[in-house]
Amino acid sequence: MRQVTIYDIAKEANVSVSTVSRVLNDTAPVKRSTRAKIEEVIQKHNFQPNAMARSLLTNETGIIGVIVPDLTNPFFPEVFAGAEEEAQQSGHTFLLSNTIGDYAKESQYLSILREKRVDGIIFLGGRINLKHCEEHLVQELVQCASVIPTVLVNGALRKTDLVRVVTDESAGTALAVRHLTLLGHREIGFIGGESHMTTTSIKLRAFRKTMKDEGLDVREEWLLPDSFSIDSGKRQMLKLLAMEERPTAVFCVNDYTAIGAIKAATEAGLSIPDDMSIVGFDDIPLAHHFIPELTTVSQQAHELGRTAVKVLKAMMNNEKVKKLTSLEPQLIIRQSSGLRS
Amino acid sequence: MRQVTIYDIAKEANVSVSTVSRVLNDTAPVKRSTRAKIEEVIQKHNFQPNAMARSLLTNETGIIGVIVPDLTNPFFPEVFAGAEEEAQQSGHTFLLSNTIGDYAKESQYLSILREKRVDGIIFLGGRINLKHCEEHLVQELVQCASVIPTVLVNGALRKTDLVRVVTDESAGTALAVRHLTLLGHREIGFIGGESHMTTTSIKLRAFRKTMKDEGLDVREEWLLPDSFSIDSGKRQMLKLLAMEERPTAVFCVNDYTAIGAIKAATEAGLSIPDDMSIVGFDDIPLAHHFIPELTTVSQQAHELGRTAVKVLKAMMNNEKVKKLTSLEPQLIIRQSSGLRS
Repeated sequence: MRQVTIYDIAKEANVSVSTVSRVLNDTAPVKRSTRAKIEEVIQKHNFQPNAMARSLLTNETGIIGVIVPDLTNPFFPEVFAGAEEEAQQSGHTFLLSNTIGDYAKESQYLSILREKRVDGIIFLGGRINLKHCEEHLVQELVQCASVIPTVLVNGALRKTDLVRVVTDESAGTALAVRHLTLLGHREIGFIGGESHMTTTSIKLRAFRKTMKDEGLDVREEWLLPDSFSIDSGKRQMLKLLAMEERPTAVFCVNDYTAIGAIKAATEAGLSIPDDMSIVGFDDIPLAHHFIPELTTVSQQAHELGRTAVKVLKAMMNNEKVKKLTSLEPQLIIRQSSGLRS
Repeated sequence: MRQVTIYDIAKEANVSVSTVSRVLNDTAPVKRSTRAKIEEVIQKHNFQPNAMARSLLTNETGIIGVIVPDLTNPFFPEVFAGAEEEAQQSGHTFLLSNTIGDYAKESQYLSILREKRVDGIIFLGGRINLKHCEEHLVQELVQCASVIPTVLVNGALRKTDLVRVVTDESAGTALAVRHLTLLGHREIGFIGGESHMTTTSIKLRAFRKTMKDEGLDVREEWLLPDSFSIDSGKRQMLKLLAMEERPTAVFCVNDYTAIGAIKAATEAGLSIPDDMSIVGFDDIPLAHHFIPELTTVSQQAHELGRTAVKVLKAMMNNEKVKKLTSLEPQLIIRQSSGLRS
């Protein structure tokens, strides 16, 4: 069945669209007989007003703009799926922009989304993950957020009080490292992540701290940042394997690098987890289906997306929201980690 | 460095934005001295006009709308990445809409994209993959395409002549089946795919035809459509394994079902490909990194996205384009297929 629109209702009830809108939103009086007629037509078609219809009177577009850095990294589509689920109820729709980690593209999309009059913006990746973000990029986003409700997801801009929704990456890293130490591992490496990104520095700092808390030494030669790709995981695992002394367990900055590390180790004849334990971060959908299944830290991508939309909707309704909403990560123990042999 | 905009150029040259635009696009005469001043500022900043700037005079927005069914299926982000690469040169940007396979959402996004005045639309999934699409859904898209240049990717609408860019799924299926017969397999199964979708019926038809051409019997009980998910691949492989007679090779409708099938077979103690050969379809990025690496048919997702944008740009420039552009799929032989033992 074709979706019935407010236009169809107006036509059938022989009234204007704004009259239907007034009945739907109860924003202005409507003649009793007219109201009855409209309500009859609405009931007949079991009509559900959507965001577009609502916006006719409220001056909202019902559209949320989402800026993401890289849709080919399955973490981001998962966050987005959660956002969509949350928006389903309120009838909001999304315009999604992919920035390929390009700051100029971020600027371009911010300006397009503003021009297209979206009601709110959810911003992921790029400049909000930089250890040092240039001032004009900071100011651009601050300025944007002063006009349009904006939520930063898994990132921050220093010296600003923009609203943020994050997973506690530091706590997640500690969970992973403690899981490995509980399995008896004492020699633990760290693979992946670009050094100028906060996600890398946060995890590296938490890694060092947890190792120290557990009374273990951090071996600097086993700290191998690189990038976030499968290939970088392979590359750094090959480096580890070529060393005279190697760790018995490795914490990887994300699931992609963990998959690369497992692949390289397996190809070199190691059995995972018997010869080496490997833990990832993110819990992308494939982590569960990889062979061996990946032990990882769930960032709760889906919940992150849902929460970002919840917070954004509150902001769009002019409700007061917390500046920081932090989700607890979860350790997901599967097959790629095991007892130190 | 902050990106210099046409506004900055206009300000520094002390002229209006439309004067800068006239110089950039050479659309109307500008006083010689004014032109010289503007060109000096442009050169000084090495300014590259972007689509937004161009659109000030040409009435184009420089924005392409893309409608996809499911971003958590890695095939679609790959197509999109190819589209972005092609658009990079011309400065076009994208607004992406995810429909979750919901026809009402497709309608909603078509209307939003029209309202937001995109210059062109690329449409994937949903109604254009249905064996039987309802007439009002067909007409809606036909009507949209009559106003905005529109390209359908890997789909079709019967009795319409909308512009299409597709991978030849029939040829791809034949490649996969012939690969298996060359390895000596004579008992071959078929897993996955929803029966009401054209991608399933096209592949199933090509499967039957190639088997016949090769002089092999199709065993109806080994044809196991389901859905496109990893879980459906697992589910159907378990069914196969429970049969008294089972095939020595399986063609899967996509990489996700192939991964599920491998997983279920491996967990049941089979070694892939020694005990059974499994071939997928799509060549998603992870196919190459799975253990064992997946033999599959590349749909050339990236090239598909690039080609769609190329065709769309030609349409936006009022050039004549072919109604159908068909890409040749490629067989990618990796580790999950081997000689019949």
